[in-house]
Amino acid sequence: MSTMSTKKKPVTTISTCNADEIIVLDKDLMGELIGKVSFTELTFMHIMRRKPTAGETAILDSVLVTLMEHGMTPSAIATRMVHLGSPDSLQGAVAAGLLSVGSNLVGTMEGMAKNLQEITTAEEGVEAAARRIARGFREAGKAIPGFGHPIHKPDDPRTPRLIEVAEANGASGTYIAAMRVLSKEVDAAWGRHLTVNATGAIGTVLSEIGIPWNVMRGIAVVSRAAGLVGHLCEEMREPAGAFMWNLCEHEVAYAGKKKLGGK
Amino acid sequence: MSTMSTKKKPVTTISTCNADEIIVLDKDLMGELIGKVSFTELTFMHIMRRKPTAGETAILDSVLVTLMEHGMTPSAIATRMVHLGSPDSLQGAVAAGLLSVGSNLVGTMEGMAKNLQEITTAEEGVEAAARRIARGFREAGKAIPGFGHPIHKPDDPRTPRLIEVAEANGASGTYIAAMRVLSKEVDAAWGRHLTVNATGAIGTVLSEIGIPWNVMRGIAVVSRAAGLVGHLCEEMREPAGAFMWNLCEHEVAYAGKKKLGGK
Amino acid sequence: MSTMSTKKKPVTTISTCNADEIIVLDKDLMGELIGKVSFTELTFMHIMRRKPTAGETAILDSVLVTLMEHGMTPSAIATRMVHLGSPDSLQGAVAAGLLSVGSNLVGTMEGMAKNLQEITTAEEGVEAAARRIARGFREAGKAIPGFGHPIHKPDDPRTPRLIEVAEANGASGTYIAAMRVLSKEVDAAWGRHLTVNATGAIGTVLSEIGIPWNVMRGIAVVSRAAGLVGHLCEEMREPAGAFMWNLCEHEVAYAGKKKLGGK
Amino acid sequence: MSTMSTKKKPVTTISTCNADEIIVLDKDLMGELIGKVSFTELTFMHIMRRKPTAGETAILDSVLVTLMEHGMTPSAIATRMVHLGSPDSLQGAVAAGLLSVGSNLVGTMEGMAKNLQEITTAEEGVEAAARRIARGFREAGKAIPGFGHPIHKPDDPRTPRLIEVAEANGASGTYIAAMRVLSKEVDAAWGRHLTVNATGAIGTVLSEIGIPWNVMRGIAVVSRAAGLVGHLCEEMREPAGAFMWNLCEHEVAYAGKKKLGGK
Repeated sequence: MSTMSTKKKPVTTISTCNADEIIVLDKDLMGELIGKVSFTELTFMHIMRRKPTAGETAILDSVLVTLMEHGMTPSAIATRMVHLGSPDSLQGAVAAGLLSVGSNLVGTMEGMAKNLQEITTAEEGVEAAARRIARGFREAGKAIPGFGHPIHKPDDPRTPRLIEVAEANGASGTYIAAMRVLSKEVDAAWGRHLTVNATGAIGTVLSEIGIPWNVMRGIAVVSRAAGLVGHLCEEMREPAGAFMWNLCEHEVAYAGKKKLGGK
Repeated sequence: MSTMSTKKKPVTTISTCNADEIIVLDKDLMGELIGKVSFTELTFMHIMRRKPTAGETAILDSVLVTLMEHGMTPSAIATRMVHLGSPDSLQGAVAAGLLSVGSNLVGTMEGMAKNLQEITTAEEGVEAAARRIARGFREAGKAIPGFGHPIHKPDDPRTPRLIEVAEANGASGTYIAAMRVLSKEVDAAWGRHLTVNATGAIGTVLSEIGIPWNVMRGIAVVSRAAGLVGHLCEEMREPAGAFMWNLCEHEVAYAGKKKLGGK
Repeated sequence: MSTMSTKKKPVTTISTCNADEIIVLDKDLMGELIGKVSFTELTFMHIMRRKPTAGETAILDSVLVTLMEHGMTPSAIATRMVHLGSPDSLQGAVAAGLLSVGSNLVGTMEGMAKNLQEITTAEEGVEAAARRIARGFREAGKAIPGFGHPIHKPDDPRTPRLIEVAEANGASGTYIAAMRVLSKEVDAAWGRHLTVNATGAIGTVLSEIGIPWNVMRGIAVVSRAAGLVGHLCEEMREPAGAFMWNLCEHEVAYAGKKKLGGK
Repeated sequence: MSTMSTKKKPVTTISTCNADEIIVLDKDLMGELIGKVSFTELTFMHIMRRKPTAGETAILDSVLVTLMEHGMTPSAIATRMVHLGSPDSLQGAVAAGLLSVGSNLVGTMEGMAKNLQEITTAEEGVEAAARRIARGFREAGKAIPGFGHPIHKPDDPRTPRLIEVAEANGASGTYIAAMRVLSKEVDAAWGRHLTVNATGAIGTVLSEIGIPWNVMRGIAVVSRAAGLVGHLCEEMREPAGAFMWNLCEHEVAYAGKKKLGGK
């Protein structure tokens, strides 16, 4: 039986309708939304409860475009595997891939955003807070979220582009400035240059447009959903799933104690 | 062991990268995509393998905007239920909601698109094919996909708006015309007016921009993903999940043979 | 807004409780279930609404044991991919793998069960119905569910063992007999021997214990859930996920029109 | 591109096969498993890599039976909501429900197991460690995992039954003893009696049979999978999903700023 307090009767402010009218996010769906706002604008409105400026829309689009596609990633492989078994359930294949959009690969945008939040509001000042945080991670022997990349060395090419788009579109620059200070302190603490990677840059520019850190993963989920639909389109045109299955089955060799040929 | 034929070694044309460059869908990610295309444009590119015209983008946006939000739907309820148990896994809560974007509620856009495909390519001509299809469903006692709505009577207000946006943005009109003929034949076969509903209109206008019927469900999945992130934002601000759980538990009464109070 | 008829207020007969008592499936949880029935027995009770005989339990166990594990299958790969991205969400990794337990690989047990249902109730008699069905699939150029296997030739070794267990545990034999007649007619229609495969045998023996065909997939889902938990245990001890990711990424070669090295 | 170290080529010890033989967990599937071991035994073998004793099987069964069913829980509601939209994807409906088997409701068995692990291995001795842990949670104002229940007061009736089954089946009692000491210290720290709840008891008895704390959630996932299949059986016989949807939609009232009746 429910163990949660539910004294207050909750309400919703998302949507309502009758025979002729549909209200979504305090707008008339037919008169004010369809044909008037883009998907990116409505997504911003849903999360932030207000219309974005043109600059905010451009920044959110830059993030959604950056996150959509990275080739044959774990999420794309999971989606294609599920399609092999359940070809009539496109939603299941996409859902499977989205389940991998979690703490390990995408979660670093949240960590960067939390650190920038702390730095920009610290009483000790931006530099002191950045130094404390950078040294804290380093001394604990932990990776600092949003820094470093195994392929994109010395620098992740997406980061300057994302910052450039944010600056060209009216970002105040508070979080970008804090990220730059943190980056200097990270390099000092590590004794070598670590790039701000794409998820680090995304955590920064999403902070610029006010997205709370605990919803940022949702932006990645939305963008990857479109990428995974694209992977399914390719899988239907040019199947790779069965090949990948065979490959994995063959290359991860069986090494149990009991061997075949028992007869 | 894999039971599928895998003779041909497959390839992918989606994405590749090295230290400095990232190619996505045959475009340079930094130079040609980030800050240059919207999420909706990149989604179209991923599915259709070419850039959309401004009109095609507007039509796809109108569909994504229409589908995003319908209030406390089964998918929103599922998402909020999963959030109660797994609050640290936003991706899991969204994935659960997306799993309901299936044959029963969304699938009718596919059925409409298939019927329009058949009507527009039939040797017998548009009218004869529409009549045959409408009568076929009616005589079989089956609902015809894309027609009828329990709330939006006599007509679904989203349909004329979606058609208006499509026509204002350069749709050729082939499928819209076929939909109108089918609508007339449906009314004749049923002996009363059935509205073309929103999913019917969406199946029509997505056909106008060339989206294959078996991918249309993916457009709904992408749009609903954003809506479900919005529901999680509301759930975090103004929790309704525990209330709904209690409500369902209380109102679906226990009616087993064995009763409490056995002591 | 809900479009479904909900005139009758529904009830549940599954479970209820108060401070001291918990009733599950018309039994006292503490006094009659915990320590008294096995998981397999309670699973049978949940689906069939009655206690199984010892023989029915043995047959259901034989099916659950057969389905649990087949090595590095698409579902196991999907589960391991999701674990890479979301290691803190075991439930998400298992759910992703289960999403592949669908029409393509597991669904054939349903098809076999439906055919046996038709054969055993046909007015024309078992042999005539089996012949009609076998020829129907053959003439339509379709695979007949539950027959054939790419590895286990000429015969799937699981099939005789499952039948043996069913016969040793009191199965009436109606569906087993029908399966044997169908098998003979399939060989005749195809002009060569096709083995009754494991899912074919499972569809047969689950029919013997009364499981409806449209729930059989659920038996596979339960069994695979345990297998996927086992795969996660191995993945934590001996990680293979990142290796499989690299392998797939490397072996599914990029073949887009735009190439790297553009600078 | 994969960012994970993959130097060592991994192996699997789970399963392999050829035309005539299938090996699962170092046993011959046909000769040693089907008809010879129960589902519960094979699940134990998959996780622990050895055959369970009869007592260990009985204890694992007692846990699986306890977890399977709690009526109209969030997971059951999520499963029924997904069934409304995707009735042809039983695996999707079950997967949705399983996604709620997470940190909030089930995770407390992990927390109890971790605390007992710490208590039973602490240099300071069992009592001192239990006191330190109980006071630590109390002073931090945090709920201590495995204690307290809103309905089952003063004591959860499942707990003594689970302990009784474990003791009757050869559990060494190390963790049960530690749990009792912890319970005494919790009551002292809180100044009132808090019951050891069912998940607390489950964390205890699963520790007794050696299940690692980070796999315990998997036991819940397996058991709930069967429960959710049962809910789908009831939903097909006696639909409640549409009713619950209507209820939630109606009772969570719309409270947006823009109101209907704009015409």
